Amino acid sequence: MHYTPKLRTEPNFAGMILQTKTLKLAGLWAFLFLFLPSLHSQDSLDQQMIQSIYHTALLNSNTYPNLKSLCKDVGHRISGSPQAEKAVQLTKQMMERMHLDSVWLQPCMVPQWKRGAPERVQILQPMRKELTALALGYSAGTGGVELQGEVIEVQSLNAVDSLGEKVKGKIVFFNRRMDPTKIRTFEAYGGAVDQRVYGPARASKYGAKAALVRSMTTEIDDWAHTGVTIFKEGEVAIPACAISTQAAEELHQLLTRGSVKIGINLTCSQGPDVPSYNVIGELRGHEYPDEVIAVGGHLDSWDVGEGAHDDGAGTMQSIGTLDIFQKIQYRNKRTLRCIMFMNEENGLKGAKAYREWTGTSGEKHIAAIESDAGGFSPRELGFEAQDAIMPKVKQLMLSWDELFEPYGVQINQGGGGADIGPLRDLNTVLIGLEPDPQRYFDFHHTKRDNFEAVHKRELELGTACMTSIMYLLDRYGIQ
Amino acid sequence: MHYTPKLRTEPNFAGMILQTKTLKLAGLWAFLFLFLPSLHSQDSLDQQMIQSIYHTALLNSNTYPNLKSLCKDVGHRISGSPQAEKAVQLTKQMMERMHLDSVWLQPCMVPQWKRGAPERVQILQPMRKELTALALGYSAGTGGVELQGEVIEVQSLNAVDSLGEKVKGKIVFFNRRMDPTKIRTFEAYGGAVDQRVYGPARASKYGAKAALVRSMTTEIDDWAHTGVTIFKEGEVAIPACAISTQAAEELHQLLTRGSVKIGINLTCSQGPDVPSYNVIGELRGHEYPDEVIAVGGHLDSWDVGEGAHDDGAGTMQSIGTLDIFQKIQYRNKRTLRCIMFMNEENGLKGAKAYREWTGTSGEKHIAAIESDAGGFSPRELGFEAQDAIMPKVKQLMLSWDELFEPYGVQINQGGGGADIGPLRDLNTVLIGLEPDPQRYFDFHHTKRDNFEAVHKRELELGTACMTSIMYLLDRYGIQ
Repeated sequence: MHYTPKLRTEPNFAGMILQTKTLKLAGLWAFLFLFLPSLHSQDSLDQQMIQSIYHTALLNSNTYPNLKSLCKDVGHRISGSPQAEKAVQLTKQMMERMHLDSVWLQPCMVPQWKRGAPERVQILQPMRKELTALALGYSAGTGGVELQGEVIEVQSLNAVDSLGEKVKGKIVFFNRRMDPTKIRTFEAYGGAVDQRVYGPARASKYGAKAALVRSMTTEIDDWAHTGVTIFKEGEVAIPACAISTQAAEELHQLLTRGSVKIGINLTCSQGPDVPSYNVIGELRGHEYPDEVIAVGGHLDSWDVGEGAHDDGAGTMQSIGTLDIFQKIQYRNKRTLRCIMFMNEENGLKGAKAYREWTGTSGEKHIAAIESDAGGFSPRELGFEAQDAIMPKVKQLMLSWDELFEPYGVQINQGGGGADIGPLRDLNTVLIGLEPDPQRYFDFHHTKRDNFEAVHKRELELGTACMTSIMYLLDRYGIQ
Repeated sequence: MHYTPKLRTEPNFAGMILQTKTLKLAGLWAFLFLFLPSLHSQDSLDQQMIQSIYHTALLNSNTYPNLKSLCKDVGHRISGSPQAEKAVQLTKQMMERMHLDSVWLQPCMVPQWKRGAPERVQILQPMRKELTALALGYSAGTGGVELQGEVIEVQSLNAVDSLGEKVKGKIVFFNRRMDPTKIRTFEAYGGAVDQRVYGPARASKYGAKAALVRSMTTEIDDWAHTGVTIFKEGEVAIPACAISTQAAEELHQLLTRGSVKIGINLTCSQGPDVPSYNVIGELRGHEYPDEVIAVGGHLDSWDVGEGAHDDGAGTMQSIGTLDIFQKIQYRNKRTLRCIMFMNEENGLKGAKAYREWTGTSGEKHIAAIESDAGGFSPRELGFEAQDAIMPKVKQLMLSWDELFEPYGVQINQGGGGADIGPLRDLNTVLIGLEPDPQRYFDFHHTKRDNFEAVHKRELELGTACMTSIMYLLDRYGIQ
C-alpha cells in the first residue's frame, strides 16, 4: 500500500476502542459521571502523563543505545564469567551517569558453569554427519574425548520411566515438539521445556550415558537453543545437548529406519561458586520513601549470542524507565528502584539475594515489574497478587486498562516473572510486560539473539509501557 | 528467560480476558443464558471452527511457500512490467492447482512507468557526495544527463505556495518527517505522505526544476522509499526522487550552513498503457451463490525489493483463506472469492475494473476483506460500512469480538482498504486486516521488502484471522 492516504480510512485505536467499550459500559459511565465528578480531570492528567512518557520513550530514550552498548561492548554474559562482571560494571556506570539518588551493588554467590571448546555432536552410524548442537547448562563434559552410544528416542519423561533399564548405556533423545498451534508461544514452551530441564536427569537415573533434547522452538531450522538442565543433589550429571529442530527431524527419520549411533564431545565443566552482584539504582520517594516500586530484568544471559532479547531488552528497558522519569521531571512519591538481577538463567541467586535483603530493609514493596519476554511490540501487562489482596488489586489494575488502549496494550490477570517471583509472599503486586510472542523463540538462548534482532521502536514502546504503569502505581499506590 | 517453566505463571489470553469481560458484562450474560439457550452451542461451534482454522493455518498452510514463490520466482512486479505479467500467470496457476470452482483473469489497462537505469542523486556543492535515492513513480527523467540546481528546503505544500516564484529553477526539498510519536505508524504516514504524492506537482507549478522528498519512515537510516507522485492533467511532470532519511538529515544540516547544489540523473520514462489483469478464483456458494464475500490484496508492487510485505503477504494470505476452507472441508453457503488486484500502487485500475464488473454481475457483495498493511502479527480487524447499514453491521461485528480474543485480535470500527474501497457504495461491509504496525515502514517501498523480512507464523496468523472472519460472514451473512 498505498495509492494515496485519502483512500484508506485510518483506524483510530483510542477513539474506536473507547467507542466500543463505552457502549458496553454505558451504565457504569453514567454512574461515574454522576457520582465522581473529579474522576474526569484525574483521567486527563493520567492521559497526559502517559502520552508524555510515550513521546519521551520514542523521541529521547536511552534504551536502544544502552542495549547496543550492553550487546556490543560486553556481549553474552553467563553468571560467573568475566563478561558478567563487565556487565555489572557497565550497568552500574550507566546508572551512575544518570545521577540517580543511589546506585549500589548487592552481592550474591553464583554458579560457574563453563561450556569450554565448541561442542561436537555427530551421527556415526548409519552415516557420518555433524549435528548443530549446544551443550545445556550444567551438562557434564566428556573429558575431551568422544562419547559414543546408540540413540533411543522418547517423547516425554514418563516414557523414560516406562523404558527403565532399557535406556542403560544409551543416549536418550527427547523429541517432543513445541506445539506450534499455541498462539501464546510461552504456553508451547511451558508444554515442552520439562524435557530440557528434567530430561537428562531422568535419563541418568536409569543409566543413560548422555541425553539429546530437541531445541525449544516451534520452527524447523538449524539453530540450537541452549538452556538450563537440572541435576539435583544425588543425581549423576551426564552430557546433555540441545540439537536444532532440523537435526532432530533428521535424527527421527533415521531412527524410523534402524539404529543410529551418535558421538558427543563436550569440554564443559563446573567451577566453584564465585561472588557476583545485582546492580541496583533508585529514585527515592519524596512522600513515601519506604514504599518501593521495583522494576527489573536479568543481567546474566546464556553464553551464546549477545543476550539481546533475553534479557538485555528487559534490563535496558528497566534503566530506561528511570531515565524517562528524569526527562519528564517527574517528582515521584514512592521509591522507584531498578534492579539488574544476576543469575536468572541458572540459579536465580540474584533474585533470592534481593528477596532476602528486603526482609531486613524495613521497606514495603508495593509492586514489582519485570520484563523478560523479549523486546517486541508490547501487548499486555499481566498482573498477579496473593489471594488476600487480589480483589482490590484487580479492581485497581483494570481501572487503568483504558489508559493503555491508545497504545494497544491490555491489562490482564497473569504475568509476573521469575526474578520478582520471590517477592510474592510480601503481598507485592507482580507485573510482567508481555510483548507479542511470535518471534521470541526464534532467538531464545541461541547464537542469533543479537542486538540486530531487536527493533528500536518495539523496544522503546516496552520502556514506555513499563514507565506508564510505574507512574500509575506511584501516583495511586495500592490502596 | 527462564529458569524453569514452573516459576513463571503462564498468562492465558482466552481465559483471562474472558474473565475480565465477563465481570463487565455479567448482566448481559445472565440475560443471554436465560433467554437465548441456543446461543451457547452456536458459540461453541464457532469457537471450534475458528480453532480449526487457526490450527490449519499454523500447521498446513500454503501461504508461506506461495509467498516464497512469488518473491523468488517473480520478484518485484510493477504494473505493466513483464514481472507483473509473470505474477498474473503464477497466481492463476496457484489457484488452478487448488481446483477452485473457477479461476479467471479480469482485464484492465494499466500505466507503464519505467525506472530505467539506477538513479543518481549527488551533492555537488559544498562538496561531492552521493545520496541514497529512488525516483518516485511518474517522475520525469532527466534524459540521461545530470540536471543541476540549488536546493530549497520546505516542510509542507503550503510552504511552496508561500514561496511562490522563489522556487523557480530550484530543486524543492520536502523534509517534514513522519511523526515517530504516533503509535499507529499509518497515521504518521498519513500525516507526511502528501509531500510525496502532491509535492513535486506543487513545486512544478511554480517552476521548480526538480523535487526531492524525505523518505516515508520514522527511522533514520539509509534506505530510500519510493512511491507514487501525481501530476494531474495540465501539470508538468518534473524529476522527483525520495532520498533516505539519513540523506535528508545530512542535506538539512548542510542547508543550515549555506547553499547546496545537487545533481540528479534519472532515465525514467512513461510508456503507453498496456493490458493487464486481476486474477480471480472462487469457491461458489452452495446456498446463496449470488452473495459474495470477497478477499484480496494487490498483485503489483513497486519495482524494488520483492514486494513481500507490500503486498505479497496480503495476496498470498488471500489465496491461503480458500486453501484453509478446502483443507477443513468447509461447505460454504455463500461465494468466497479471492482477488489479486492489479495496479494498486499507481492507478487502482484493477480495483476500478472489478467494481465496474460488479455493476453487471448481478451479485451482491456482502463483505470484502483486504490485507495490505504487511505480514505482521495480526492485532485488529477494522470494519466500515455506509451509514445506512452501520448500526446493524456494528452490532454484528462486535458480537464476534470475543471469538477473536484467544487469538489476540480485536474487532473495531476503522479499516477498509484501497482496493476494496470502490465497493463501498454497494453497501458492502469493508474489512481491513490490521497487523502490528511498528515494523511496516522499515520495508515499505524499499529494496529490503524481501521474503526474508516476513515471519512465517505472523504471516500465517493473518491468513487464519482473515479466514475466520470470512467463516463468520459466510455462516451468518449480514442481516
